[in-house]
Amino acid sequence: MKALVLEHVKHLRLRDFPLEETLGPQDVRIQVQACGICGSDIHYYLEGAIGDFILQEPMILGHEAAGVVIEKGSAVTNVALGDLVCMEPGIPRAFSPEVLAGRYNLDPGVVFWATPPVHGCLRETVVHPAPFCFKVPAGLSPREGAMMEPLAIGIEAAKQAHISPGDTALVIGAGTIGIMSTLSVLAGGCSQVFVADVKAEKLEIAASYAQVAPINTATEPLLERILHETAGRGVDIIIEASGSPRVYPDFFKCAKPGGKVVLVGMMNGTVPLDVTLLQARGISIATIFRYTNAFDRALALVSAGKIDVKRLISKTFPFDDAVAAYEYAAAGHPEVVKVMIDLS
Amino acid sequence: MKALVLEHVKHLRLRDFPLEETLGPQDVRIQVQACGICGSDIHYYLEGAIGDFILQEPMILGHEAAGVVIEKGSAVTNVALGDLVCMEPGIPRAFSPEVLAGRYNLDPGVVFWATPPVHGCLRETVVHPAPFCFKVPAGLSPREGAMMEPLAIGIEAAKQAHISPGDTALVIGAGTIGIMSTLSVLAGGCSQVFVADVKAEKLEIAASYAQVAPINTATEPLLERILHETAGRGVDIIIEASGSPRVYPDFFKCAKPGGKVVLVGMMNGTVPLDVTLLQARGISIATIFRYTNAFDRALALVSAGKIDVKRLISKTFPFDDAVAAYEYAAAGHPEVVKVMIDLS
Amino acid sequence: MKALVLEHVKHLRLRDFPLEETLGPQDVRIQVQACGICGSDIHYYLEGAIGDFILQEPMILGHEAAGVVIEKGSAVTNVALGDLVCMEPGIPRAFSPEVLAGRYNLDPGVVFWATPPVHGCLRETVVHPAPFCFKVPAGLSPREGAMMEPLAIGIEAAKQAHISPGDTALVIGAGTIGIMSTLSVLAGGCSQVFVADVKAEKLEIAASYAQVAPINTATEPLLERILHETAGRGVDIIIEASGSPRVYPDFFKCAKPGGKVVLVGMMNGTVPLDVTLLQARGISIATIFRYTNAFDRALALVSAGKIDVKRLISKTFPFDDAVAAYEYAAAGHPEVVKVMIDLS
Amino acid sequence: MKALVLEHVKHLRLRDFPLEETLGPQDVRIQVQACGICGSDIHYYLEGAIGDFILQEPMILGHEAAGVVIEKGSAVTNVALGDLVCMEPGIPRAFSPEVLAGRYNLDPGVVFWATPPVHGCLRETVVHPAPFCFKVPAGLSPREGAMMEPLAIGIEAAKQAHISPGDTALVIGAGTIGIMSTLSVLAGGCSQVFVADVKAEKLEIAASYAQVAPINTATEPLLERILHETAGRGVDIIIEASGSPRVYPDFFKCAKPGGKVVLVGMMNGTVPLDVTLLQARGISIATIFRYTNAFDRALALVSAGKIDVKRLISKTFPFDDAVAAYEYAAAGHPEVVKVMIDLS
Repeated sequence: MKALVLEHVKHLRLRDFPLEETLGPQDVRIQVQACGICGSDIHYYLEGAIGDFILQEPMILGHEAAGVVIEKGSAVTNVALGDLVCMEPGIPRAFSPEVLAGRYNLDPGVVFWATPPVHGCLRETVVHPAPFCFKVPAGLSPREGAMMEPLAIGIEAAKQAHISPGDTALVIGAGTIGIMSTLSVLAGGCSQVFVADVKAEKLEIAASYAQVAPINTATEPLLERILHETAGRGVDIIIEASGSPRVYPDFFKCAKPGGKVVLVGMMNGTVPLDVTLLQARGISIATIFRYTNAFDRALALVSAGKIDVKRLISKTFPFDDAVAAYEYAAAGHPEVVKVMIDLS
Repeated sequence: MKALVLEHVKHLRLRDFPLEETLGPQDVRIQVQACGICGSDIHYYLEGAIGDFILQEPMILGHEAAGVVIEKGSAVTNVALGDLVCMEPGIPRAFSPEVLAGRYNLDPGVVFWATPPVHGCLRETVVHPAPFCFKVPAGLSPREGAMMEPLAIGIEAAKQAHISPGDTALVIGAGTIGIMSTLSVLAGGCSQVFVADVKAEKLEIAASYAQVAPINTATEPLLERILHETAGRGVDIIIEASGSPRVYPDFFKCAKPGGKVVLVGMMNGTVPLDVTLLQARGISIATIFRYTNAFDRALALVSAGKIDVKRLISKTFPFDDAVAAYEYAAAGHPEVVKVMIDLS
Repeated sequence: MKALVLEHVKHLRLRDFPLEETLGPQDVRIQVQACGICGSDIHYYLEGAIGDFILQEPMILGHEAAGVVIEKGSAVTNVALGDLVCMEPGIPRAFSPEVLAGRYNLDPGVVFWATPPVHGCLRETVVHPAPFCFKVPAGLSPREGAMMEPLAIGIEAAKQAHISPGDTALVIGAGTIGIMSTLSVLAGGCSQVFVADVKAEKLEIAASYAQVAPINTATEPLLERILHETAGRGVDIIIEASGSPRVYPDFFKCAKPGGKVVLVGMMNGTVPLDVTLLQARGISIATIFRYTNAFDRALALVSAGKIDVKRLISKTFPFDDAVAAYEYAAAGHPEVVKVMIDLS
Repeated sequence: MKALVLEHVKHLRLRDFPLEETLGPQDVRIQVQACGICGSDIHYYLEGAIGDFILQEPMILGHEAAGVVIEKGSAVTNVALGDLVCMEPGIPRAFSPEVLAGRYNLDPGVVFWATPPVHGCLRETVVHPAPFCFKVPAGLSPREGAMMEPLAIGIEAAKQAHISPGDTALVIGAGTIGIMSTLSVLAGGCSQVFVADVKAEKLEIAASYAQVAPINTATEPLLERILHETAGRGVDIIIEASGSPRVYPDFFKCAKPGGKVVLVGMMNGTVPLDVTLLQARGISIATIFRYTNAFDRALALVSAGKIDVKRLISKTFPFDDAVAAYEYAAAGHPEVVKVMIDLS
């Protein structure tokens, strides 16, 4: 079938790729309709590796996708032929300790699309276990369905923040994940979210949503602004979504006594932590790694109109121009949130 | 000063009432601007008692109020002269076990407005401890400020539901507390709320809000409808806000495995509970009693535009017509949510 | 192979039972060494049914067991040949919504030993998925291993109680589950546990453990005693393990403001609940259904010497006398906690 | 009255100190019987300051104390004349935001004994608010009562760890706080605790308790040992009680996926944090600052025999030798846990 193949580092090709996939009783076969480009896709494209995951053979890219069910196994009940579905791209082992403990995302045996040596889904069809396929409600498009994967990360951040209704939040970083976190904590109960970044274009997108107050930390000091806006108390929740080591350890000062911090942004190496500051304020830290049970939540909130992802699809390319789409995404235009590929 | 006095059961009078209140260092004196009529006020008016609290001497009514700070004690820092504030009507004992445990609402020593023998605030001025006064943000009126007390109950229900973003909820009862709970769980992260009642007028008000699906249980079976709407799974959260014993124990069947139930509605006597049903579904139950730390959350969500309480103020009477206001409220018009008294 | 077969109601036979079990890659084959008799086994024996589960063909009994691994599938890594293991008797479906949500006990598709039409393990060998087999630490016997199943229920109750170190508890019912709950909450952080029952023999066994205070409710009023012992405050945690409707709704009065109640005892029909009492004290209720991730916890606490289950094995019968063992257990001697069958 | 006064840095004197204390209605006057020496006392003695708290006038030392109630205010009900009580040394402001939020320890307005300019309690009598005085159960001595303050820190660490029964823990640091944390997590539900330190004398004391496995990190690698002992999985809970920057960031690797870390040890400056490691394992971090509602828990567990603090009182000096006691404590003998002063 036709697929977007990363042949080796910096060398992408849209070509026929021989792939036979058998359908188990709990599987569905999906005709892929839309697939977004993620930062990790770009990373493999440009570097050929993320950490210990190193490209060694040609690999199909893509893991943010939606499509139509064209075949289903005998035991599948949650989706029907013809359904538009979006897919959770990581499959844990059945009955691993992490699965039984309710943290299937932490299973070291997770098989994840487009992570070497596992192929992704930028191709005509893909077979996937039905429990990880989610029916997209009427009214939403395949491209919106494909947005559920990055949104799921924001939802997971919001889940781990354990928001109490009316909390205030600070999201650090207005990139895709920062915006997804912002929308998720707003939908999840926050009354107001401050979003900090150094790029005006990113902040402008974030600020197009209600209850979002942008803070350009290139031009104004973060802590002073937060204290000014919160009567000197700080925010209830901080989501670190920049992955920038430079923001550590100062941003913790923006938290209210008893505040909660969720670390979403990933980075290499270590960052400085001021333990005594955390203690004196009773700050706790949660971390997230991908997501659990987040796709149906994401779909419910988008379908209800509480989260709008449409405006974050900056540009769409047809499948035939998939290589150009990657080149465009890799260029890093600051006003671009999500580049989408249309396979319909 | 002029006050609305419940002289004895069914006998209300707007009259001068001699009351000298000294101002402590942590107190403020407030010129009352607006005060809502609560079901408990009506109860004292018509019955002269609620449970063990029995009217024995003339008592000023009213505990849902907002007003302007006209004097403040030497140690007050959270509000300023001229601020519009709303007031939390119950004051716990300093350092009671419940206060230190973070559950000040459960302190048996709480002193609460308009609960015999404590006077309420339907009067020209009232002295109140500043930590229980909350600045109403610019743009909100005194009457909206007075709505924070009933809204605080909804906020508390939403807090205790520990909503995860995208949860679905069922609220039983579309009276004032049911609607406040509905708005609170929606603002607090729910994607959709089913509201069940037998009165069409109440359901119409609830259904005027987005993401609210009314269920008239006088004409359609609750469980079937819920299962139909949730692909047979049930809802994540149930808020019982009707206080009607007849809804027990059947409504628990509407909960998803692992679902959470919050009991808000109060009633006399006991209701039937099906323990094995709860166990087989892993259902847990929380109960609420008034609220803790809910006023600032209510104000933040209303000020952010996430909760609209204006449309719930059904009718406003000037202070001089306060007795008529009570008679109107006591008549129990089904289309009425909140009757407000304007003292400005 | 030889097995204890419930041919039909009240008709047990130890006989050869033809059963071919193939070993999957994640399975182990276990030579059963010890198996306890549970109240549910007796129920099937005497009544032929529990709720909707009705005996329709001959069924092997037994689900509280330990044994030695004699064969293992190619993918098994958590246990080795020759290991003494105990087995969790209920297997959920891989990737059911409840499994992915971390509540695999609530999966309606759970396959559970000795629940019609599923055979139990009172037989020479049994094949079981390795993730539900747990290595019994050195120093513990097969019979102690077989006690982990009933103990797991107590552990689950203790988990759901969310004990804070030094909490006090009241356990209602000194039967097997009551005692298991008592030992679990003590090991789980309680400083003292009151155990209430009407049978002196049961209370005597409970009181043989340190920090346990028995209350014979046949001769002394429960509430008065609890208030006397807790300076009028009540206990932090109540575990209802009697399954007796008569204890409802009064026992809730023994809870401290903010107290937590865990309902473990099952019963038919409904019981009366005093909602307003629960609200005024801010009481919350959790329910348990079997257990999740409890066997390794049970083993760790027994192995560490924090829980002693040996003294609860009241009488042991050899496999050849299994029918007599059931008759003895069915007689309901008040001083008996657990009747064990030795298959070694 | 006679008091141990820190006149200025390194200059201690036992002398008469004029101090008039009036008794409010909620206060008690206590004849001090025993007072322990804390690391912070030594710090003020040797350095004259801790962070921003700088000794500027002579100050009485001591905050770990027990004594007998010799006078009580009119509103006091929780303790009686003649009661032996221990005292929580920090008093928050009534109705501060942190108090109302249930986190009174985080109130920046806390008044804490022996923190400049507030006098401590190494003196004949002291007046204290009754809600912060706790009756010591019969059978415990004043010196054991004085141990509740350091134990309260361990209890707080155990509370914040949210132990599930049977969890394993690693405590880093076998100093006083490390041992208190060890005893607290064991009493709070852990099945086994590994205690790591570089000092053999400290480890020997820790290892004298059941279920404690010492790890001398001067001679054996921590991570390898932990992985070996936990079948390669890591521990559920880590308590960092050393305050040593060198242990960061490596000790986090000892945590199981989903593990919880509680940071108790304080230090100057920052430490390195490996964010991606935390994320990949889903590790969360809690921090503690003093304690809330921990004294009654500590007393209950010691009184129940679940925690033994007697063996940690290494040496006792009479009040007249209080200066010698401080010199002895300041010498830092590795086999010494707590130096106690007897004022009875």
